[in-house]
Amino acid sequence: MAQLSTDFPQCLPRQMIRVGQGRKICLYFQSMKFSELALGQTATRTIRLTPEMIAGFADVTGDHNPLHTDPAYAEPRFGGIIAHGVLLVGFFSAILATQLPGPGSVARSLNVRFKAPARPGDDVSIEVKIIELVPKIRKAVLEGRAFVGDQILLQISAEALLEE
Amino acid sequence: MAQLSTDFPQCLPRQMIRVGQGRKICLYFQSMKFSELALGQTATRTIRLTPEMIAGFADVTGDHNPLHTDPAYAEPRFGGIIAHGVLLVGFFSAILATQLPGPGSVARSLNVRFKAPARPGDDVSIEVKIIELVPKIRKAVLEGRAFVGDQILLQISAEALLEE
Repeated sequence: MAQLSTDFPQCLPRQMIRVGQGRKICLYFQSMKFSELALGQTATRTIRLTPEMIAGFADVTGDHNPLHTDPAYAEPRFGGIIAHGVLLVGFFSAILATQLPGPGSVARSLNVRFKAPARPGDDVSIEVKIIELVPKIRKAVLEGRAFVGDQILLQISAEALLEE
Repeated sequence: MAQLSTDFPQCLPRQMIRVGQGRKICLYFQSMKFSELALGQTATRTIRLTPEMIAGFADVTGDHNPLHTDPAYAEPRFGGIIAHGVLLVGFFSAILATQLPGPGSVARSLNVRFKAPARPGDDVSIEVKIIELVPKIRKAVLEGRAFVGDQILLQISAEALLEE
């Protein structure tokens, strides 16, 4: 479980990371080794989706599809703007990178199936579970889903390679 | 081909979109109908990857893996910070959303295989090509890749559904 804080009396040097110009945070993460992983291990996180996240994602990727930025354009089809699907994929890979397996792991593949859109104000929950471990190449296969209440937004599977 | 401009004497109302608090741009896009698509159609875009894009992506997704934010942490393994793989997936879906097929299309699935990391300062090129069309449900299947020079960064395939 990762915790972000700007107040870090107990922060180890390797946990103090730069996140922008001059800004630092202490990332209290459990960076797991391959030998510490087990089939069935899970991690979850719930994120309140904000208009700023959607606008920020549009800015960094250049994806200014008006379905994501213009309420009037998006109204007839979706009743208002919707989040980029790949933003939700980013929430998923953030769990891989900071919780399970944690920092040091890199994604090798992703397979995503989008089921329903997310909207500003939604509390999006992401669940991740280890379904396969390949010790020879320190590979973990994970599957997950994003949902809001009873509504599944996407199903995803991923392969992650661990450094140690 | 989409062009962004803040100077829009010829902008049609449907092309003037909101991209943030009070900001508007004119998106001169060719929003394609399913009947205008053909097998083999391609779109490309090259993006100079900046540290600000990587920091912005970390902020909106919460993916503060120090491989993406802390040069000292990333140095031993990658010789410096690397971009989030899903940021490159965002560049790919931005082409789908603004060039081919264009606004109004939504992604139904994505399959990504990561081959090599991208770094700040890289000119990342994205190529997209239509490889299958399913008229009954107005579905286009596209495949693409991201590369820097001769180095392939990722291979991707996607299904997109068109509104009309």
